[in-house]
Amino acid sequence: MESPLGSSTRRPTIEDVALAAGVSVATVSRALRGLPNVAVSTRSRVRDTAAAMRYRPNPAASRLAAGRSRTVTVVVPTLNSWYFSTVVAGAEAVCAESDYDFLVVGLGSADERARFFAPLNQVEHRTDGLILVEVRPDGAQAASLRSRGIAISTVGARVEGFPSVRVDDVEVGRIAIEHLLDLGHDRVGVIGGMPEDPMNFDVPKLRRQGVLDALAERGLALSDDLVAAGNFSIDGGAEAMSLLLDCGRPPTAVFAFSDEMAFGALMTAAARGVRVGRDISLIGVDDHEFSRVVDLTTVRQRVAWNGAAAARALISMMSEQRIDTFDQIAPIELVVRSTTGHLRSEGTATAP
Amino acid sequence: MESPLGSSTRRPTIEDVALAAGVSVATVSRALRGLPNVAVSTRSRVRDTAAAMRYRPNPAASRLAAGRSRTVTVVVPTLNSWYFSTVVAGAEAVCAESDYDFLVVGLGSADERARFFAPLNQVEHRTDGLILVEVRPDGAQAASLRSRGIAISTVGARVEGFPSVRVDDVEVGRIAIEHLLDLGHDRVGVIGGMPEDPMNFDVPKLRRQGVLDALAERGLALSDDLVAAGNFSIDGGAEAMSLLLDCGRPPTAVFAFSDEMAFGALMTAAARGVRVGRDISLIGVDDHEFSRVVDLTTVRQRVAWNGAAAARALISMMSEQRIDTFDQIAPIELVVRSTTGHLRSEGTATAP
Repeated sequence: MESPLGSSTRRPTIEDVALAAGVSVATVSRALRGLPNVAVSTRSRVRDTAAAMRYRPNPAASRLAAGRSRTVTVVVPTLNSWYFSTVVAGAEAVCAESDYDFLVVGLGSADERARFFAPLNQVEHRTDGLILVEVRPDGAQAASLRSRGIAISTVGARVEGFPSVRVDDVEVGRIAIEHLLDLGHDRVGVIGGMPEDPMNFDVPKLRRQGVLDALAERGLALSDDLVAAGNFSIDGGAEAMSLLLDCGRPPTAVFAFSDEMAFGALMTAAARGVRVGRDISLIGVDDHEFSRVVDLTTVRQRVAWNGAAAARALISMMSEQRIDTFDQIAPIELVVRSTTGHLRSEGTATAP
Repeated sequence: MESPLGSSTRRPTIEDVALAAGVSVATVSRALRGLPNVAVSTRSRVRDTAAAMRYRPNPAASRLAAGRSRTVTVVVPTLNSWYFSTVVAGAEAVCAESDYDFLVVGLGSADERARFFAPLNQVEHRTDGLILVEVRPDGAQAASLRSRGIAISTVGARVEGFPSVRVDDVEVGRIAIEHLLDLGHDRVGVIGGMPEDPMNFDVPKLRRQGVLDALAERGLALSDDLVAAGNFSIDGGAEAMSLLLDCGRPPTAVFAFSDEMAFGALMTAAARGVRVGRDISLIGVDDHEFSRVVDLTTVRQRVAWNGAAAARALISMMSEQRIDTFDQIAPIELVVRSTTGHLRSEGTATAP
């Protein structure tokens, strides 16, 4: 329904410029692109003519004619999140370096996802390739993308037949819990994902599996009252920490599935006078740039690097015209800071 | 140089589908778009034919033919920064809501800026409008954009003849300093921007002006040894705080031009045993979501909201085909938390 500013007057074409300047279309093209084999006087006449006519070449059209748009589209559930905007920043840097335009599409709902992956959607035709970040097409959608030869790489969710970059999230959960168990804690709370998850994210399920595995190896189980949903937000983490501290027998250590939720847990602890690292231990995931500021123990993943790696996989696949199905498992590592400590004999989560 | 996956076989055109289905091009178009006035049997034959041929309509081409791309391009110095990625997230949400595709362009250097704003650049032709975030074209570039009828809105840097959304950064500096002066501090340090600034950002200059104005009104000046460059980063803020604490007579209060630099200052203070809010006061700018976590006093600006407002200004300008030059001054407010306090008689920045 909208029209762009100034679209009411017809835009002059390269043919119009050629006619007005009295030269061939090819000469106009060469002159404006600064290519050799155009006389200086001709070049300046063409440029003056083009400027006077407000001629703008239309590279999008010529790229379309050549069957490519030199555009990468990154698809994320939302940009309004540290994790996703950090992945996007990593991918954008690589695309800019390789001179690809960079489209961002947010798919916040199952409906939006269904529309996006429908065979006759709009976006795919404007792009050479997609980077799907924690967005997983269903089997039919994936098959359709494959059959149409659309280049794709993914971050997080693995899609059969496409290259992916992801961390081993079961291992993330295992590393966190083993660190807490090694410090003597045996009553461990978990601040997890969403109680209801319309996007059906894999990450919380996998991290939870790692938690269960690590506990089971020491003959421990996860009791329901030690699990609270934190929605991967600061406020959600703060509320979840309140629930955990208020339960009958509070945990002596807490594993938050993201650093942002751990930040919220720190706020709750501070408000209650619970000393984190002494009265209670706390570990997150990400190594968010603020984790250093509050000296948070965490399982580090290199989020921007993962976005960059997915962009590189996509661009190399497109430029070499081959299917790449490499499943790249990105590094993670335990970073011990001051929010985790040995279980103390008097160690409970109640304030002194 | 690169080619997209599968581009080696020619993509079927709408003409090919029309020929194969034995109908007109217009009928193919109507049938695939679900428009009326196509017989049910014809519609299904066209759809089957298109599917069998793996025909994909090319909306980018039809949009170009109609003179519009239904795309907004946001131009930022970098995505690798909380401030810029938060502005982008706010703008993206509005563009998605209005069904505009969303291109992101990072212009990290003066060279990139010059190329981007050159009259015959690539990007502008793929977009209906630009949102410039703290990116200011020079006079000739701005005039050229205007003369070509390219719709633009800006966040931060005001460009004559285009609508803008920005905060009053002189007022930001004034509010911060007045808060510290009101608490009795008269030896105030500043953690500012970059020692050398190739992008020539306005923000640090304006905030510094606000500092000087507020000090002058109380008969005070800003001595050089109380100003340190923090590069708008956590690490830069940490180093700047070290310099301020090590100077002959350290400040009793510090104003950091961003919350991120204030976070770095907090790290330095913690490492030295300086109690922020007691031994020294600290105020930032932004109300970064993490500021609540460390209980940082700050001058709040609504960063995502500003991005959204710029996107709305742009879209309404494009849809109504009029020039809008409204300079929207976005709200700011002092948020007092625990990192600022009254000057104490023993109050110096040296550790106890």
